[in-house]
Amino acid sequence: MDTGSHRVRRPATVRRMILRDPVHGLVSFEAPESCLVPRLLDAREVQRLRRIRQLGLTSLAFPGAEHTRFAHAIGAAHVMTLLLDRLRSIEHMLPVEHRITPRDAREAVAAAFLHDVGHGPLSHLFEESVPGLPKHEHWTDAIVRDSGTDVHRILEAQAEGTAERVAALVRGEHRLPYLAHSVSGLFDIDRCDYLLRDAHATGVRYGDFDLPWLLRSLLVHDAPHRGPELAIDGAKGLPAIEAFLIARLFMFQQVYLHKATRAAEWMVRAVIRRAVERHQQGHTPDHFPAALREAALGTRPTLGAYLELDDAWLTTAMHAWERDADPILSNLCARLRSRALFKTLEIFGEDAKPASMGALLAHAQTVVREAGGDETYDVHLDEAIVVPFNEPSDDPMMVLFAKGPARPLREVSFLLERIAGASIRRVRVVMAPEHRDRLVAALRSDGGPSA
Amino acid sequence: MDTGSHRVRRPATVRRMILRDPVHGLVSFEAPESCLVPRLLDAREVQRLRRIRQLGLTSLAFPGAEHTRFAHAIGAAHVMTLLLDRLRSIEHMLPVEHRITPRDAREAVAAAFLHDVGHGPLSHLFEESVPGLPKHEHWTDAIVRDSGTDVHRILEAQAEGTAERVAALVRGEHRLPYLAHSVSGLFDIDRCDYLLRDAHATGVRYGDFDLPWLLRSLLVHDAPHRGPELAIDGAKGLPAIEAFLIARLFMFQQVYLHKATRAAEWMVRAVIRRAVERHQQGHTPDHFPAALREAALGTRPTLGAYLELDDAWLTTAMHAWERDADPILSNLCARLRSRALFKTLEIFGEDAKPASMGALLAHAQTVVREAGGDETYDVHLDEAIVVPFNEPSDDPMMVLFAKGPARPLREVSFLLERIAGASIRRVRVVMAPEHRDRLVAALRSDGGPSA
Amino acid sequence: MDTGSHRVRRPATVRRMILRDPVHGLVSFEAPESCLVPRLLDAREVQRLRRIRQLGLTSLAFPGAEHTRFAHAIGAAHVMTLLLDRLRSIEHMLPVEHRITPRDAREAVAAAFLHDVGHGPLSHLFEESVPGLPKHEHWTDAIVRDSGTDVHRILEAQAEGTAERVAALVRGEHRLPYLAHSVSGLFDIDRCDYLLRDAHATGVRYGDFDLPWLLRSLLVHDAPHRGPELAIDGAKGLPAIEAFLIARLFMFQQVYLHKATRAAEWMVRAVIRRAVERHQQGHTPDHFPAALREAALGTRPTLGAYLELDDAWLTTAMHAWERDADPILSNLCARLRSRALFKTLEIFGEDAKPASMGALLAHAQTVVREAGGDETYDVHLDEAIVVPFNEPSDDPMMVLFAKGPARPLREVSFLLERIAGASIRRVRVVMAPEHRDRLVAALRSDGGPSA
Amino acid sequence: MDTGSHRVRRPATVRRMILRDPVHGLVSFEAPESCLVPRLLDAREVQRLRRIRQLGLTSLAFPGAEHTRFAHAIGAAHVMTLLLDRLRSIEHMLPVEHRITPRDAREAVAAAFLHDVGHGPLSHLFEESVPGLPKHEHWTDAIVRDSGTDVHRILEAQAEGTAERVAALVRGEHRLPYLAHSVSGLFDIDRCDYLLRDAHATGVRYGDFDLPWLLRSLLVHDAPHRGPELAIDGAKGLPAIEAFLIARLFMFQQVYLHKATRAAEWMVRAVIRRAVERHQQGHTPDHFPAALREAALGTRPTLGAYLELDDAWLTTAMHAWERDADPILSNLCARLRSRALFKTLEIFGEDAKPASMGALLAHAQTVVREAGGDETYDVHLDEAIVVPFNEPSDDPMMVLFAKGPARPLREVSFLLERIAGASIRRVRVVMAPEHRDRLVAALRSDGGPSA
Repeated sequence: MDTGSHRVRRPATVRRMILRDPVHGLVSFEAPESCLVPRLLDAREVQRLRRIRQLGLTSLAFPGAEHTRFAHAIGAAHVMTLLLDRLRSIEHMLPVEHRITPRDAREAVAAAFLHDVGHGPLSHLFEESVPGLPKHEHWTDAIVRDSGTDVHRILEAQAEGTAERVAALVRGEHRLPYLAHSVSGLFDIDRCDYLLRDAHATGVRYGDFDLPWLLRSLLVHDAPHRGPELAIDGAKGLPAIEAFLIARLFMFQQVYLHKATRAAEWMVRAVIRRAVERHQQGHTPDHFPAALREAALGTRPTLGAYLELDDAWLTTAMHAWERDADPILSNLCARLRSRALFKTLEIFGEDAKPASMGALLAHAQTVVREAGGDETYDVHLDEAIVVPFNEPSDDPMMVLFAKGPARPLREVSFLLERIAGASIRRVRVVMAPEHRDRLVAALRSDGGPSA
Repeated sequence: MDTGSHRVRRPATVRRMILRDPVHGLVSFEAPESCLVPRLLDAREVQRLRRIRQLGLTSLAFPGAEHTRFAHAIGAAHVMTLLLDRLRSIEHMLPVEHRITPRDAREAVAAAFLHDVGHGPLSHLFEESVPGLPKHEHWTDAIVRDSGTDVHRILEAQAEGTAERVAALVRGEHRLPYLAHSVSGLFDIDRCDYLLRDAHATGVRYGDFDLPWLLRSLLVHDAPHRGPELAIDGAKGLPAIEAFLIARLFMFQQVYLHKATRAAEWMVRAVIRRAVERHQQGHTPDHFPAALREAALGTRPTLGAYLELDDAWLTTAMHAWERDADPILSNLCARLRSRALFKTLEIFGEDAKPASMGALLAHAQTVVREAGGDETYDVHLDEAIVVPFNEPSDDPMMVLFAKGPARPLREVSFLLERIAGASIRRVRVVMAPEHRDRLVAALRSDGGPSA
Repeated sequence: MDTGSHRVRRPATVRRMILRDPVHGLVSFEAPESCLVPRLLDAREVQRLRRIRQLGLTSLAFPGAEHTRFAHAIGAAHVMTLLLDRLRSIEHMLPVEHRITPRDAREAVAAAFLHDVGHGPLSHLFEESVPGLPKHEHWTDAIVRDSGTDVHRILEAQAEGTAERVAALVRGEHRLPYLAHSVSGLFDIDRCDYLLRDAHATGVRYGDFDLPWLLRSLLVHDAPHRGPELAIDGAKGLPAIEAFLIARLFMFQQVYLHKATRAAEWMVRAVIRRAVERHQQGHTPDHFPAALREAALGTRPTLGAYLELDDAWLTTAMHAWERDADPILSNLCARLRSRALFKTLEIFGEDAKPASMGALLAHAQTVVREAGGDETYDVHLDEAIVVPFNEPSDDPMMVLFAKGPARPLREVSFLLERIAGASIRRVRVVMAPEHRDRLVAALRSDGGPSA
Repeated sequence: MDTGSHRVRRPATVRRMILRDPVHGLVSFEAPESCLVPRLLDAREVQRLRRIRQLGLTSLAFPGAEHTRFAHAIGAAHVMTLLLDRLRSIEHMLPVEHRITPRDAREAVAAAFLHDVGHGPLSHLFEESVPGLPKHEHWTDAIVRDSGTDVHRILEAQAEGTAERVAALVRGEHRLPYLAHSVSGLFDIDRCDYLLRDAHATGVRYGDFDLPWLLRSLLVHDAPHRGPELAIDGAKGLPAIEAFLIARLFMFQQVYLHKATRAAEWMVRAVIRRAVERHQQGHTPDHFPAALREAALGTRPTLGAYLELDDAWLTTAMHAWERDADPILSNLCARLRSRALFKTLEIFGEDAKPASMGALLAHAQTVVREAGGDETYDVHLDEAIVVPFNEPSDDPMMVLFAKGPARPLREVSFLLERIAGASIRRVRVVMAPEHRDRLVAALRSDGGPSA
């Protein structure tokens, strides 16, 4: 890989690092297991995360939500060091071969730090906008494993094979499944950090939970046929894990599914789709990047081209596209820049059922078309589904008691038993403001909200 | 009433008051509607609340929980001023006759301040210990209405009839039911303050919720046959009221039903019961107060006698009773002072069902008796039942939407729908430590915990 | 003015607004005096503040510091509403002609919201980089007063003359000087918000102070020859104002003068200077904006050209300049993107005295030149001076006591008396890393740090 | 020693302990060095601290300040474990003989836990009330060293000599002076905990500082003739130690020297003095305890008698004394119970100088006497002196820099240099309310407050 930019040389000295984090306070990467973080910090692929906001367009609804993937990466690595401290203190519960080695620990911290390094502009948003574009997991894997990246070079400088092992951990594969699950699972370092960080930045307090107590409540349960897995101390930790899961539910309801954000996200996806269409029609907009050119041809973009993309590129491009000859493209971009967002109408009851959605959208499109609007770009049906708490029934999180057998979390929790597997689904018509009154009149059903 | 103590004269000047509260920050009683609070603060019956801990014996499990009923009274009055601010800002939604008058407001703040003024030693604990003793609601009513109290005198100095009206408000009676319900209801100033205060003092963060946002989400719903009631803004307030109710659930699970607290509470109830028995048998313990003498005779204590009781009296009395000739009394008191608490064994499954409890207790008592213990005082069956969210089906809290009809909270909340009416029930055997092993062996059932 | 972008039409309905702010919690612009804020929010010049970080490059040292001027504008307007609440509650202390009218209040909130609307990329940084470029105060004034801006149009739609009056308030001119000083003065809404916000975002807790208590401690002092001014209640407010001023001192020491930030700031200033030089030499870099073209000619940029500039432009431009033919420009840009920052060496004692600085810089430049470096771009002498607490002796903040005369703050404060007028001065050599060892060896004096 | 109470037996099992602390969150005593804390928790002398409020009568001014010495003891032990973690991470800076052994660590945690175990009722207040009564340091020493106490027994069960070594540590004597100074010194675990805890409980935010960052900034400086001492990392820690010391200054100004508290404290001292006088005159009040009987005879109370005293005793006794035949005693007690506190008048300028204080008091006493008051009990001159930052010039806290020599803290801190050695002195006349107007008129000088 060659990102095409000027290569900066830097002496490879041993570095220790402490820094202030608004969520965790003092964050220290000084222990041997943390040694890769200060080095990885210099990687261009990591510094790029400074230019990608964690919550994409959420700052349009919550002005404080400007925090970046970079800060989240640091936070996730920090939570991993806390988790490793806890796991070390209970490793006597495990046979020696199931304990975490110093190398495991070092690579787990690196994996936590890099777990989201492949995100594109506005985090999840970009990958959903371009048909055929690989998801961020693909790019994360590529960044860690491609011999041309700074990240790869730094990992391999530690020990040969490090990059492959870290990539495997991020994918959820490891000799110790409980370690892999702590990078990505029901309770993982990613969720631990993002819930706290998103709550801190948005000012929505419901995302708060008691991280130190939750970590202290972790145990390791050696299940007969499954091997050791993270488990919860039933005497101390039930409210902690419940509050963690409920915090996530609240953040979905309050922030992640916010109507203004969903409307803006659809607008940006429409912008990118339209820009690609214009390019395919021979009217390539300014600032149209190599990665999209490649994607428009149905080829997978090179890693170098992908890494050129970030929020600053998207902002600059959309600003340029305000002057594009295509009125659809220019209009959407101008609206986004001045926050003249599309409106939403939430649909309830029968009309919102999966089987009715096709007819609902067709109806809305007809209304828009008859009013002279663009049925593709002026109206959209947005469906969001979240399952706040779910687990595979054959691999549930277990709760341990001083006496008596281990039991699945969902069976011992008053709250979680009642929401296990249940989904929250929100259906909204997203529409240009000039069509709102007409659509509201046409689509208003008798229903009204229900749980 | 004559409390028998030295009467202190004080000039009845107009007083304004600001103070620092660890929960709410700056607390100000400067507005006209708050004018009674600075005056009531001087009442001896109110100052007595400084000597009564809000959470009784909870500090045995959470060392920070030393906060008093006095601080809670200030906090509750403060929350009422915030609530009145909100109600004023939406009073245009109501016909004039349903709006809160300045007198209503002044008396609502006073009612909030006095709503728990009748609590006895260790708050709820004392009233449960003495058979036939009226509950704290009775004493609150008496303190407000008895012409001999400072509280009564101060209220009546404001305007004749104030005391009766404030007492009615505390009992939940008012021309404006929504005002009465804000003193005591599903969402009331009592819960608002105690959840935050108990969370702050114990260090258990789950009691936290977003009070300003919740207050801002309040609306008034004018139901056809019920008159105006507090309601929730469906566009803004659903997570706020959900988090409030879930916070209460968490506080029950984590704090209010804590096993050490429950064990200690039973010990204190046993101490008081035993002291009364000893008195009835002609062996009156030292520091045996007039209120208990009266209660032991089956007569209701005078208000003056009741007001002599507080945590300091109970602490001093129990210390004296360590030297009582009765070994049961002296032993329980000595254990409590040095925190050598009784142990608990939680019972699950079939054995915990209401129908089995008689047999369970009998079995436990037999074990204790056969081991030479006291079957009445060395073992106890403790049952706690909490319904985290319940409402009368004919008077639910309503949620209002910009469009569409008002709907009951339980129907529109993903979480609350699933827990409405459900109860948490905990059954524990409480026992002197010396009987634990024997009882654990005898009572251990196959079960184990379940939700 | 014509910003050249697509104009978005929006119906001018009355809007009320509440939102969540991570610093202040619930922020409400619902009162009549706040009516301009929801409307101004739609102005393109205000939305532009979303693309300008409050603390410029500080996120290179404190990863959380991504908060924007937009969030600060909201916070400052919110603090103004709190301040107006306080001033209203004490207006009886003033003659009627010195009281704040509803129009004054409305315009004060608007002025608070707009006080920094003219900031350029990376806030203060940009204006210091381009010789002859007007300061942000100029641009703020222009945005408010130029009849082509959304801001102007919205203000004038409220009442003719509003824009001029708001502009005057921002400049510190008003019939009521105490109102003007609350927009900009020793204690003003700008400082109140930015200290708390910067502390929240960086995780540096020293910027915290007790805003509600400080506001409650404000009084108005009617000085004989000066007219009414904000003053402090000596019985309540001394620690509050002291803590406010000490918080500012700590934030300077800890954040605003951080060595990594200062080094990065110098690098960006060097980048812009070099880009302008290259343009003047006929080698115009890509993405070189109209505003800089105009500035390079010594003409003041048009407002439209200025408003095109924001952090996203600068990020994109510097990324493009990594490929510029000029090695100085490309190298600085590449270093910044990958955070390979220049190093600093703090100078103490004699060498740091103002009289010695010329010789110090010359010495450093010689060292760099002899090592083959660029004496203009590879080394720099950075001097920062802050006076934590200073006031004009003829217009000090006064402290009022229940008895006795008003006294200047500096005379009654144990802490402030001791730091009044004293300055903190930091002198650092900023240098490319490859010259560090050589420069450290050459410049190391015997001194060492002293206060 | 025999406290005369019922001895409770408890099995001496190994115990590990975690608990929730409102200040520090999760507090864990699970490491080997913490093993004594769970055991010491059962000691009756430690449980007694539950009945002694940390801030004495401060809750009369700050209703939240009900926290106990018991919670502070836990917090101080917790801070010691954090400090030991830090010291371990830098022990390579010290020769082996200067490093902390496991036994040192275990005893340091015990010393931190026990450092205030000898406090009497209302903490500092009691010891100042009774002439000739030993200070709390004496009683702490006695509790640790007396072979009759639970504390002694538990310490000696760990290893012979433990009690003597722990007592020496509390007195500030240890082979490693830096360890002794961390129990009691400029920066010690006592201050660390009480500043945070008092701030948390009172709601006064100025006591807050960044403990984790401060601990991380600690280094050990091996001074030539003094041996190793705790020092500050000049690159990281200056604002942290400054904020710590300024927090203490603010807490003195705001809380510890609060006028209502000072007035109430004088009242309680007067009550105890008067009760002792009455006893000496043959009119022994009720509840007059053995410890005071002994003190009244000029003999040092036995440890057993001393340990019977706590806040509950004092509250009960003062309540009983409201009915004492002596009007001075009964009146003071009644005033305290209903919070009808004495008033204060702060004296400034010439009148407040040490040389003038005798005349000032005489003048005040004359005024009171002539008005028919009691010149001994109705008026008092209260002088409080605090030196916010002071160090012996031959043993200052040093600040270390990467390059250059270590320098004393006071020389490198802008703030501390300016307050080093300076004292805050407050002189107030304390008086019965009925004498206030008269005394204010008589004592009002021209002065007014000055710094």
